[in-house]
Amino acid sequence: TVDGVTLNGPLSDNRDGERFLEDAFQIIMNEAVKKGTDVTEKVCDWKEPGKLREMLDLELRETGENHERLLQRCHDVAKYSVKTSHPRFFNQLFAGLDHHSLAGRFLTEALNSSQYTYEVAPVFVLMEEVVLSTLRSLIGWDSGDGIFCPGGSISNLYAMNLARYRAFPEVKQRGLWAVPRLAVFTSKECHYSVGKSASVLGVGLQNVHPVKVDERGVMIPEDLDEQIENAKSQGSVPFLVSATSGTTILGAFDPLDKIADVCGKHKLWFHVDAAWGGSALLSKKHKHLLKGIDRADSVAWNPHKMLMAGLQSSAFLMKDSSGLLKQCHSANATYLFQQDKFYDMSYDTGDKSIQCGRKVDCLKLWLMWKATGTLGLEQRVDRAFAYTRYLVEEMKKRGGFQLVVEPQFVNLCFWYVPPSLRGEEGSEGYQEKLSKVAPTIKERMVKKGSMMVGYQPHQDKVNFFRLVVISPQITRADLDFFLDEIESLGRDL
Amino acid sequence: TVDGVTLNGPLSDNRDGERFLEDAFQIIMNEAVKKGTDVTEKVCDWKEPGKLREMLDLELRETGENHERLLQRCHDVAKYSVKTSHPRFFNQLFAGLDHHSLAGRFLTEALNSSQYTYEVAPVFVLMEEVVLSTLRSLIGWDSGDGIFCPGGSISNLYAMNLARYRAFPEVKQRGLWAVPRLAVFTSKECHYSVGKSASVLGVGLQNVHPVKVDERGVMIPEDLDEQIENAKSQGSVPFLVSATSGTTILGAFDPLDKIADVCGKHKLWFHVDAAWGGSALLSKKHKHLLKGIDRADSVAWNPHKMLMAGLQSSAFLMKDSSGLLKQCHSANATYLFQQDKFYDMSYDTGDKSIQCGRKVDCLKLWLMWKATGTLGLEQRVDRAFAYTRYLVEEMKKRGGFQLVVEPQFVNLCFWYVPPSLRGEEGSEGYQEKLSKVAPTIKERMVKKGSMMVGYQPHQDKVNFFRLVVISPQITRADLDFFLDEIESLGRDL
Ligand SMILES: Cc1ncc(COP(=O)(O)O)c(C=O)c1O
Ligand SMILES: Cc1ncc(COP(=O)(O)O)c(C=O)c1O
Repeated sequence: TVDGVTLNGPLSDNRDGERFLEDAFQIIMNEAVKKGTDVTEKVCDWKEPGKLREMLDLELRETGENHERLLQRCHDVAKYSVKTSHPRFFNQLFAGLDHHSLAGRFLTEALNSSQYTYEVAPVFVLMEEVVLSTLRSLIGWDSGDGIFCPGGSISNLYAMNLARYRAFPEVKQRGLWAVPRLAVFTSKECHYSVGKSASVLGVGLQNVHPVKVDERGVMIPEDLDEQIENAKSQGSVPFLVSATSGTTILGAFDPLDKIADVCGKHKLWFHVDAAWGGSALLSKKHKHLLKGIDRADSVAWNPHKMLMAGLQSSAFLMKDSSGLLKQCHSANATYLFQQDKFYDMSYDTGDKSIQCGRKVDCLKLWLMWKATGTLGLEQRVDRAFAYTRYLVEEMKKRGGFQLVVEPQFVNLCFWYVPPSLRGEEGSEGYQEKLSKVAPTIKERMVKKGSMMVGYQPHQDKVNFFRLVVISPQITRADLDFFLDEIESLGRDL
Repeated sequence: TVDGVTLNGPLSDNRDGERFLEDAFQIIMNEAVKKGTDVTEKVCDWKEPGKLREMLDLELRETGENHERLLQRCHDVAKYSVKTSHPRFFNQLFAGLDHHSLAGRFLTEALNSSQYTYEVAPVFVLMEEVVLSTLRSLIGWDSGDGIFCPGGSISNLYAMNLARYRAFPEVKQRGLWAVPRLAVFTSKECHYSVGKSASVLGVGLQNVHPVKVDERGVMIPEDLDEQIENAKSQGSVPFLVSATSGTTILGAFDPLDKIADVCGKHKLWFHVDAAWGGSALLSKKHKHLLKGIDRADSVAWNPHKMLMAGLQSSAFLMKDSSGLLKQCHSANATYLFQQDKFYDMSYDTGDKSIQCGRKVDCLKLWLMWKATGTLGLEQRVDRAFAYTRYLVEEMKKRGGFQLVVEPQFVNLCFWYVPPSLRGEEGSEGYQEKLSKVAPTIKERMVKKGSMMVGYQPHQDKVNFFRLVVISPQITRADLDFFLDEIESLGRDL
């Protein structure tokens, strides 16, 4: 006994813990995995925040609870959570369930490693490199660098930091006061993380210059060139162009080859935010959408979106293989990255990150890929495009579905125009009335639990739905159901 | 059939996937959970990188592999990974296994939510708030704000960004060129993420002023005050002091009350990096180490370290409850944060983050807390202190163990002086010889697989071990084993 603590035995019993894990696993399988993918179950069991808080009894107390009570808690958490793997969940840019990936995620959690040194994560250091290099080869690079980040927003932030470092390495030491006002260029349709990154990096939102897009949401390279010239003439120093391959809302693909030309002309870092659209690179039929991506300096690509690797999975990929990533981020902490280790210390990749502890994000994607093969992943991508094609055709057959734009990708943006509004397009108050349709249909579907799909106002357009269907578990029946359900929920509006 | 894709049925069979999950779970239980915590198994099965790469056959191919092969792969990943839950893993600031937390992690993965809106993560939005508010109440705050971040480094980065925003909100829009050169103050012993954050934020490493520490590694508040005055007199504008509660290597606690006085005097944001030492707040006996933490503006606290919540779990906590966090980070994306939702949109907390998709990090901690109770967690913390006390006493009894400093916390920093070097302390080449001891012992233990403990050179001190014992599964036998094993591996050096 030391300081009143008995050290003769452990504080708790591993056997009890293992029994809990076994029982919890059954609940997870039944409530989250099986019911979560079962089309006859609800997508969500909607409760108001106040009500739900009360039902869940979330408060943390002095003493612990028993086995049965804790299992019930797991059950309740699953019951009241939204089933993002459900065949009728279309609300985000992720959906569906890949069981192999999920097994990889369980294994990742059980091993609880941190991805910084070979010493502590030997398998994952090697595995991350193989996965990154496979992704790079799909981009068309046979060498390069990269790292998994906690999400595409952080991958985009990395791009901005790397671009700045290549242009002005002194910023790392001396800060932005050592350099002139910098300028970033990206389209008006870019993901908001480009702006957030500019704020965090001290570059400032105002120095992110929005480039014009055409009616499909595609960046106009001539305007890019003009904006760059303008910024220069106003004394700013351009350093980064961030193109988007698969924009968040419209699913637009910027013309990478032309943008690469502009970047070449002005000697700017060329980043491609392919967080969403990168997966099209797996499809021989559709990869032309990203033609020119091999000319980029860096790419962000989220396998947790279309490929269903599970959150979080985002690769930041670079063409550079001279060590820029590590130079930009390294702090050379001696307690992790000792220089007198008995193995090749180039395997201690953690100093490439702005994180210290870093979750292992590669295993789930690796295991899924081993199970499905590159060709299997290609099938999934092609299937997502086919869903979209089918839905577009069906919408054109039915009355009341109006496309916002012909889809380039798998974002299907449309208004549902209820019978009462049809033929009233030009009339006064039409836009105002139309803008109320999507929120009302959404509220109804969520309260019913029949499906979930997102809507938003965007630029000058009032609320429209953005339908995204990617899960390979989905069948034509689910697509027909979607259209029927929108009609049935919105018919009386 | 659309574009050659048949949509009549799903692409793959859920039943097959579920069967794989069931089988993989057994492997995870046996190879990672049970063997991973079994003291008769190796901590690691060391292989050289080249050899391991070959053995694992990591390459990703066109076609998928069969059920048995994939299970074998799960087995191999577990086999060659380091067992961070093993009773002889002392290599990092995390260790051990909490089975309830692990169940929460499995459930998190199965539900695959993103923590941004109430609509898509109703349970987790409410749960995160309860967990954060419980942590805040331990700090001594009865209101405030906060968010889970992907690691303590990012939490520290948040602190710096928030401090800057409060002092100069215009930076968000206009960048750092709009303000004078800023200055950050932190001790020489701080975690390297403070420096990394300064680089990323464009503040620059040079503008992080290292404050002197005493011989235990504790910040000297008088020097802090002096440094601030100096920086001001050189035209810099101080905005942030980052104190450390539980430094990474020595486990030192900065004197928060005195630092708070200095911050008050100069009106600076007072951040406490309690990523490591925050958990001492759970102990009535030891929380005095953080006296004054309630006077901080923000705190970083990692439950994935001492509390064993599993990577990643890091809370960024703020005293402010006026909405500063959201104002600083928000981008108001309409596609996520629509303003015409049918529920109270203050529950859509995602715009407080610099991420977009954000992994759910609260469930595992919540479930563990429900299972263990606050008092159970306190026991764990007290136990970790008791391990350290016991080890210190034992080291003093044995010859050859020399403390670098009397531990304030549970970092036990020591040199092992092999018999050949004892009594040679002042002699020429002594430091050089001593510096080779830890790396050699480390190499031997890793190749044998008997245990893992970290070492580093630090400031003017040559390589010493940093022993950190926190897992509640550990018994006195493991502690004695540690000391015996160091002796047996190092005796002949
Ligand atoms: C084009 C694009 N880039 C980046 C992101 C951000 O990815 P994450 O949510 O992983 O941060 C998104 C998210 O939807 C996106 O659509
Ligand atoms: C004092 C301190 N702060 C911050 C961190 C960073 O935490 P993380 O590894 O979660 O980024 C550490 C990590 O060891 C630490 O010791």
